[in-house]
Amino acid sequence: MTTPIRIAIAGARGHMGRAVIELAGQDPTLAVVARIARAGSAAADGQVELTAALAQADVVIDFTSGAASAALASACAARGGPALVIGSTGFEDEDLAAIAAAARYIPIVRSGNFSLGLNLLLGMVARVAKALPQQEWDIEIVEAHHRRKVDAPSGTALMLGEAAAQGRGVALEAVAQRERDGITGARPPGEIGFAVLRAGGIVGEHSVMFAAEDEILTLSHSARDRSMFARGALAAARWVVHRQPGEYDMQDVLGLGAPG
Amino acid sequence: MTTPIRIAIAGARGHMGRAVIELAGQDPTLAVVARIARAGSAAADGQVELTAALAQADVVIDFTSGAASAALASACAARGGPALVIGSTGFEDEDLAAIAAAARYIPIVRSGNFSLGLNLLLGMVARVAKALPQQEWDIEIVEAHHRRKVDAPSGTALMLGEAAAQGRGVALEAVAQRERDGITGARPPGEIGFAVLRAGGIVGEHSVMFAAEDEILTLSHSARDRSMFARGALAAARWVVHRQPGEYDMQDVLGLGAPG
Amino acid sequence: MTTPIRIAIAGARGHMGRAVIELAGQDPTLAVVARIARAGSAAADGQVELTAALAQADVVIDFTSGAASAALASACAARGGPALVIGSTGFEDEDLAAIAAAARYIPIVRSGNFSLGLNLLLGMVARVAKALPQQEWDIEIVEAHHRRKVDAPSGTALMLGEAAAQGRGVALEAVAQRERDGITGARPPGEIGFAVLRAGGIVGEHSVMFAAEDEILTLSHSARDRSMFARGALAAARWVVHRQPGEYDMQDVLGLGAPG
Amino acid sequence: MTTPIRIAIAGARGHMGRAVIELAGQDPTLAVVARIARAGSAAADGQVELTAALAQADVVIDFTSGAASAALASACAARGGPALVIGSTGFEDEDLAAIAAAARYIPIVRSGNFSLGLNLLLGMVARVAKALPQQEWDIEIVEAHHRRKVDAPSGTALMLGEAAAQGRGVALEAVAQRERDGITGARPPGEIGFAVLRAGGIVGEHSVMFAAEDEILTLSHSARDRSMFARGALAAARWVVHRQPGEYDMQDVLGLGAPG
Repeated sequence: MTTPIRIAIAGARGHMGRAVIELAGQDPTLAVVARIARAGSAAADGQVELTAALAQADVVIDFTSGAASAALASACAARGGPALVIGSTGFEDEDLAAIAAAARYIPIVRSGNFSLGLNLLLGMVARVAKALPQQEWDIEIVEAHHRRKVDAPSGTALMLGEAAAQGRGVALEAVAQRERDGITGARPPGEIGFAVLRAGGIVGEHSVMFAAEDEILTLSHSARDRSMFARGALAAARWVVHRQPGEYDMQDVLGLGAPG
Repeated sequence: MTTPIRIAIAGARGHMGRAVIELAGQDPTLAVVARIARAGSAAADGQVELTAALAQADVVIDFTSGAASAALASACAARGGPALVIGSTGFEDEDLAAIAAAARYIPIVRSGNFSLGLNLLLGMVARVAKALPQQEWDIEIVEAHHRRKVDAPSGTALMLGEAAAQGRGVALEAVAQRERDGITGARPPGEIGFAVLRAGGIVGEHSVMFAAEDEILTLSHSARDRSMFARGALAAARWVVHRQPGEYDMQDVLGLGAPG
Repeated sequence: MTTPIRIAIAGARGHMGRAVIELAGQDPTLAVVARIARAGSAAADGQVELTAALAQADVVIDFTSGAASAALASACAARGGPALVIGSTGFEDEDLAAIAAAARYIPIVRSGNFSLGLNLLLGMVARVAKALPQQEWDIEIVEAHHRRKVDAPSGTALMLGEAAAQGRGVALEAVAQRERDGITGARPPGEIGFAVLRAGGIVGEHSVMFAAEDEILTLSHSARDRSMFARGALAAARWVVHRQPGEYDMQDVLGLGAPG
Repeated sequence: MTTPIRIAIAGARGHMGRAVIELAGQDPTLAVVARIARAGSAAADGQVELTAALAQADVVIDFTSGAASAALASACAARGGPALVIGSTGFEDEDLAAIAAAARYIPIVRSGNFSLGLNLLLGMVARVAKALPQQEWDIEIVEAHHRRKVDAPSGTALMLGEAAAQGRGVALEAVAQRERDGITGARPPGEIGFAVLRAGGIVGEHSVMFAAEDEILTLSHSARDRSMFARGALAAARWVVHRQPGEYDMQDVLGLGAPG
């Protein structure tokens, strides 16, 4: 039996930190060895001080925020390890620079979205959009979310649109169609359409349709629970402990290159 | 073996007339016995004059236009038959009055949409919308059509919206949401949302979703070919030959009452 | 402001009892006034004795088991109320007889499946199967569940098959097709096909497809969470407090009659 | 305005040959310059003799059969052109050897399936199956076809299964699950499930689902009309005229490499 991968958690009290701890607890190949106390705060409630935590861990999973993540990356790099998985948001330029500098000494996966399925979907959409001529193939993006969501289209739908536009070598703003109502005229070639549904408790559904005159290819993702993000962070942790120093994203974890 | 039902066709040269003739030709229980010449035109090209046609037929299938249909209905009624299936459009009030008068003597099915599936869908949507409390269940209607379609949402999608609104006892205009873009806020209860896709050669797809916090009911229709309308007209013809005089629609043909 | 409906819970410690209590707690029009102690057990832990509970309640929601439900129904009937919603399973004939007898004095809703969506689906499937001629319309039922499910097809899929067969006036066993593999030959008219998917954490998906040569009607249900059953039990409770004595099911709660 | 690509057709009287000619006729960038008479038959009915045809064409699109395609490839190679798109079936080893030899002098695309969408789907399925760990992600393949289809699962569904198995580095026969009925027990990890629907006039639907505990990725293809194969053959013709000698397939035309 192999030794479990030893994980320290930064942001252990947050929603994602707790989800990571719960999920890791169900996997015998992983061991959560330390929850890292916030710098300057007392190491209460079972949390341990930073240096002690880093000494015990193969990898840190970090869901804090930009500045804290930058400091954590520097601390890991100064010691020559552990590896780092960063899921924080809210980075200033200087935070990103610190993380990039740290990545010269340790391997770091950083992502704003750890869903394996959504990351695969983004990669495939860019690739398919590139492969299929836009004179013959129309792209439509549909998303559905619960009734409490206050913006539309979803951030993920827009990312999918960006991926499709990038595959075609165009700017999304130049081709996005976000409203069809009344006498619209025929659909122009090259347009990327968005359709939005809001209903009930839908966690998150996204579909990208590529439709020609006589065939349709549809790539869809359905989220059942936000625990999928914790699951993806653990997949990144398992992957990053075997890497050379460098900054990676989920496309790397999934073994996908840039689209063709 | 039973005698085939004898069918006369009005509007035999039109798109729908030809589709009906082709489909009836594949069914040994049906026989197209006459194509009715336009009034005043020579009975060329195998077409026969009205009185001769009516004498031979159990039922007339009529895809002409409002005034011609009204005259045809009166002629059938004056003879005490045959029965009539009307799929024409473009009726003036006086045409409708003439058809209603004729229906006191002969059975008439009149519909603007002979798809069995779409008619069932309309009936179910009204019924489900009535059964499910709108505080807990959100309704969203999605339609997809080919890139050449110039208006949105489709007429059928709007009919589905009307059916849902009727089931809830509200006016569609008061609750329809046809655009969601940007910061929309949370979805208000009672709203009926529309989403539109235009892509490739899609013949016509319609879905009505009823979504609560923890379950979703979806009723969908997919058209593969416009021959479905001819098929429905033949179903109406088979049904109407056994009816008492009266004016009927496809809900009657399908054995559906008004929603509970 | 109207007075909340007062609910007593039998089986309050079970999975469904707890789900009902949690959901009712979010609704100001409902008040859980008593959790009923098991007969013979001490009324510990906030539970109250049966007679006291019945005296306070407008309706009892009961997720216990056959014999306990029968006794509860008799006790409610003897007092002339409260009304009763029974979601228990495992009834002997004598239990059902006792419940039927009680229903002469109080209104009782009894169901093995409180999902509003699934109950609507069952009703619609019977109705549509009756309306569409089987020579032209094929029925296929698809279900998907999580990888831990040990039987196939699901009980709900078989109920949907029964509803379709009943609509057509045939026995399901005579027309069910549960396996297609290898050289199958063309599909016989009248067959009702079943297809099964097992994957990941899918809570429960059911689709019934009615397909003709050129159009398809699909009725689908997707369960997101088993709380839908608690929600349906509360809907039944709201409905039953206004009824005359009698035994009802979820089709009655939903205002659906038997299929045409 | 650029000169149209000049196309000669072998097998011009067959179903696919006629579809290619019809579709090419709608595209001003393509010109069908010759229909090639069968060797030894009189060049009647507007068809032209082989040598004359090859002299006029930039590319030959060939839907004949194995031996005829081999002879055609040799004839093209002997002249140093034109390029060749082969969609025939029924090859003996010696036919394939002759085509491979010809591909040293001219570029040849050979495929048994010219649908752009299905070829993209096959490539993606292999790639995704490789990227997602099979302990956490289950694969299920669903296909639906018209009632006249006599075998199950479809050849394309089995190809998708092969692609998934190849991505996972296993043999499909060892992991395919083609029947679930009765008490099946829990789903074993690594299984690849097949589900089959037969109904109405469905041209061809294929879905590959990758499902984890809390998210699902689904890749689907829907065929509306077999003209998609003609369209793909024309795409191959446009592509191959600019290639170096060699034997290519549709993955090459689509710019997809082998899965990572």
